[in-house]
Amino acid sequence: MTLHGHSLVAGQLAASSSRTFHPISPLDSRPMEPAFHECALEDVDQALWQAEEAFALYRKSSAETRAAFLEAIADEILALGDDLLQRCHHETGLPLDRLTGERGRTCGQLKMFAALVREGSWVDARIDTAQPERTPVPKADIRRMLAPLGPVIVFGSSNFPLAFSVAGGDTASALAAGCPVIVKAHRAHPGTSELVAGAIGRAVEKCGVPHGVFSMLHGAGSEIGIALVKHPLARAAGFTGSRVAGRALFDAANARPEPIPVFAEMSSLNPLIILPGALRERGEQIAQGLRTSVTMGVGQFCTKPGLVFGIGSPEFEKFGEDFAAAMRAAAPGTMLHPGICRAFHDGVDAMEKVPGVVRVAESDTEPDAAKTQGEPTVFATDVEDFLAKRALHEEIFGPFTLLVSARSFAELEAALKSLDGQLTATFHATPADLAEASDLLHILERKAGRLIINGFPTGVEVCPSMHHGGPYPATTDARFTSVGTAAIQRWSRPVCYQSFPADLLPAELRSENPRGVMRTLNGQLTRDGV
Amino acid sequence: MTLHGHSLVAGQLAASSSRTFHPISPLDSRPMEPAFHECALEDVDQALWQAEEAFALYRKSSAETRAAFLEAIADEILALGDDLLQRCHHETGLPLDRLTGERGRTCGQLKMFAALVREGSWVDARIDTAQPERTPVPKADIRRMLAPLGPVIVFGSSNFPLAFSVAGGDTASALAAGCPVIVKAHRAHPGTSELVAGAIGRAVEKCGVPHGVFSMLHGAGSEIGIALVKHPLARAAGFTGSRVAGRALFDAANARPEPIPVFAEMSSLNPLIILPGALRERGEQIAQGLRTSVTMGVGQFCTKPGLVFGIGSPEFEKFGEDFAAAMRAAAPGTMLHPGICRAFHDGVDAMEKVPGVVRVAESDTEPDAAKTQGEPTVFATDVEDFLAKRALHEEIFGPFTLLVSARSFAELEAALKSLDGQLTATFHATPADLAEASDLLHILERKAGRLIINGFPTGVEVCPSMHHGGPYPATTDARFTSVGTAAIQRWSRPVCYQSFPADLLPAELRSENPRGVMRTLNGQLTRDGV
Repeated sequence: MTLHGHSLVAGQLAASSSRTFHPISPLDSRPMEPAFHECALEDVDQALWQAEEAFALYRKSSAETRAAFLEAIADEILALGDDLLQRCHHETGLPLDRLTGERGRTCGQLKMFAALVREGSWVDARIDTAQPERTPVPKADIRRMLAPLGPVIVFGSSNFPLAFSVAGGDTASALAAGCPVIVKAHRAHPGTSELVAGAIGRAVEKCGVPHGVFSMLHGAGSEIGIALVKHPLARAAGFTGSRVAGRALFDAANARPEPIPVFAEMSSLNPLIILPGALRERGEQIAQGLRTSVTMGVGQFCTKPGLVFGIGSPEFEKFGEDFAAAMRAAAPGTMLHPGICRAFHDGVDAMEKVPGVVRVAESDTEPDAAKTQGEPTVFATDVEDFLAKRALHEEIFGPFTLLVSARSFAELEAALKSLDGQLTATFHATPADLAEASDLLHILERKAGRLIINGFPTGVEVCPSMHHGGPYPATTDARFTSVGTAAIQRWSRPVCYQSFPADLLPAELRSENPRGVMRTLNGQLTRDGV
Repeated sequence: MTLHGHSLVAGQLAASSSRTFHPISPLDSRPMEPAFHECALEDVDQALWQAEEAFALYRKSSAETRAAFLEAIADEILALGDDLLQRCHHETGLPLDRLTGERGRTCGQLKMFAALVREGSWVDARIDTAQPERTPVPKADIRRMLAPLGPVIVFGSSNFPLAFSVAGGDTASALAAGCPVIVKAHRAHPGTSELVAGAIGRAVEKCGVPHGVFSMLHGAGSEIGIALVKHPLARAAGFTGSRVAGRALFDAANARPEPIPVFAEMSSLNPLIILPGALRERGEQIAQGLRTSVTMGVGQFCTKPGLVFGIGSPEFEKFGEDFAAAMRAAAPGTMLHPGICRAFHDGVDAMEKVPGVVRVAESDTEPDAAKTQGEPTVFATDVEDFLAKRALHEEIFGPFTLLVSARSFAELEAALKSLDGQLTATFHATPADLAEASDLLHILERKAGRLIINGFPTGVEVCPSMHHGGPYPATTDARFTSVGTAAIQRWSRPVCYQSFPADLLPAELRSENPRGVMRTLNGQLTRDGV
């Protein structure tokens, strides 16, 4: 496996700038070869122009072409074999079995979107037939369906180096919608990015789609990302990362002369509420499950439960002790990159200084700084302090959670009302608990994108009903998901055709319904022809 | 008919500020009684808090409750009878037959959304059933559907005093989605607004929905509008009006700590392209149709064709003469309010000063300033000047259009490529023209929300397949429509329920599908139960 270290613009190595960077392996804190070249602003411009040109053809490509292309990407990723997993392991510190699973998810996502576009009903086709005799004015024939937006910017995330990076969910859904994609590779895993970009490049060749449909750019700072989002030809962007970076992209996109949507997934505490009956029935089991959820992937999931509420009681104290013991016994783990590890420790240190908050447990094993480790850590406070101190509402990304005890249901309600928007909210509850807790449920129904009963929020199922999104600051736009088939809706807009001859209509809108998609025909959902 | 001149907050007359204003009737330029009280910032706050409180109940209201409420609003508007039409006529200058038609459209929209929520499939329900035996990890039961966003701000528009004002399309779709509505009444027709708000208030009483579900506020400047959009409890806003005002609201909403969507419809030239074959076959007929479309409602439709392209030829010259003659013969008309009339004349004067643009026709009848009249006006230029002067890309709201002649298809293509986003784009073409013009069609497919062949863009059908929206600056968000059933999508977001007991699920997500809605069940669209 030889890496060239360059950005790829429409199938060509980019004329990159002379600035280079080396990723640091979190496994041993050593720089990795080769040097990666940051791209130049000219490469950004070139990638967008190539994407725009490719879009003219790609937006009119058949569903079968797009589906085959997505499947070819999955095949080419698998064909990278162990090289990909090994490089990714060294760049991210993630264990090989996790990466094998994530590769499966990545290919599964690509195939899910292939199936979605083959089936075709996602375009939400609607037809109202003409009524030439209608009085006082005749009714024209009107048809509409979703069409792709145009070039989409995808920001690779650090915590899913395969499933939410170069060929991840955003790329798959945007290509499925008919949009060219320009990926800004995450600087922490540029080699992984290059390998996957190569796989996409081979799929482009194999399927004969225009080269400009895909580019991947390297850049170590924020300059390239901002330039991509501000480029006049960019039509939308998808991002997963920090709140500061996400908001900066969102603000840049909205300040454009012609604003574009930025779907940024940024920060979530994923509150988990343990109600008294559940605590009595299976407190210890919940403590073990919580430990697994908080420490899974060294706490680097956006759905990690970072906030645990209970009503103060001997049972909640016992639960806290069980959970603390489990976290003490849990080993530190290698985090994704030095920056995340530093931010984790800084966050924990800052929280320690907040009056009224106490550290109740940390791993019995000392973290190894050379291995970029973060240690499982538990803090505790009460609702009064939680309400008074906004610092306790900040996400700490890593194997950390904060236990919050309430003196009453009313206090618990006040605490939940004070929360910002969330990706998820979880209840552990018996049926009797739930009967009493409907107010709490209704509060969180407004705060979160996904509500879970008697489970854990980590482990985001990729399926049509998944909603991975939530009110700000969980995301910049609660109306859209980044996981599941509905993710395709981010990259499309309706186009309406009035009084069009049949041969100029897209297949999905032709009267005979050649693709057999579900349509709204004169107000009725049907697969019938006109 | 007695008007009180106050804002209405959740069924109560507002404790308005001491500042008052009188609307000016465009029919005679005289102030109308009574004095209308601008609301105070406290009223804004009060309206939002009442809406928030009402939302807790209203969001859980049944589809039947919402449908009956929308129908009751329509009934109460009709029950206002001639008083409403007369007041509206005096406030807006719009003729009674137009207003009778618009009232029908308004009530029709309310009933359309009633039918939509009764049918219920708009919530896009999705269910993936559990697979407890799946390895390596079991699959949980996951269900999701659309839920209302919360309090919505609706800005009354001046050009549709009924159909896009107090009980217009935005209000109807937001109430249908389950959102409380706070209307900022347009200052040009406050009496009409008060009457319709009263009708909604009676429907609230009749249907027993919470009073906070509806408020209507008066304000003469931009202060109240901005305060509404910046209020922390506001969740979204809908606006139709000028580009400057729309962008100001959009920017204010995005600068919030927690940004919210603003759907602003702002400005569109609605290009109309006449291809050579059509010109030869029926140039004169097109000229007459264009005159009707440009002067309809004194040119005060957002879909008025403000830009007409043709390839320079004797036929296009003849067309220009026919059209000029028709426009000369067309009478001036009373515009909606003095501000719009002034802006129209200022726009025409400014365009006259642009080198390379000539006035080719205006109405033979002098406009009557006391009657706030605007006169049908035609200017002409060529593509070279059109490309060079961005001032020619600005909308002039009123009975104005600009003819642009191209020397070649290539020049026409360049002109179309230079256009900003549009609500509509229209071709007059024979089948042979269209066969040659597919490049032009593809260019405008990216620029416009609705494409029309051999018709005119004015007259926006209210139906499921309508898309009334388009790329910026036509609207701030090309992905959504303000007309047609899909307008409801602006006010909702998905909520996902994982492992929920049946009795805590919304009806649309229960296994037996009690409402019989179309759902995506394990990836298949069906009305079957689980």
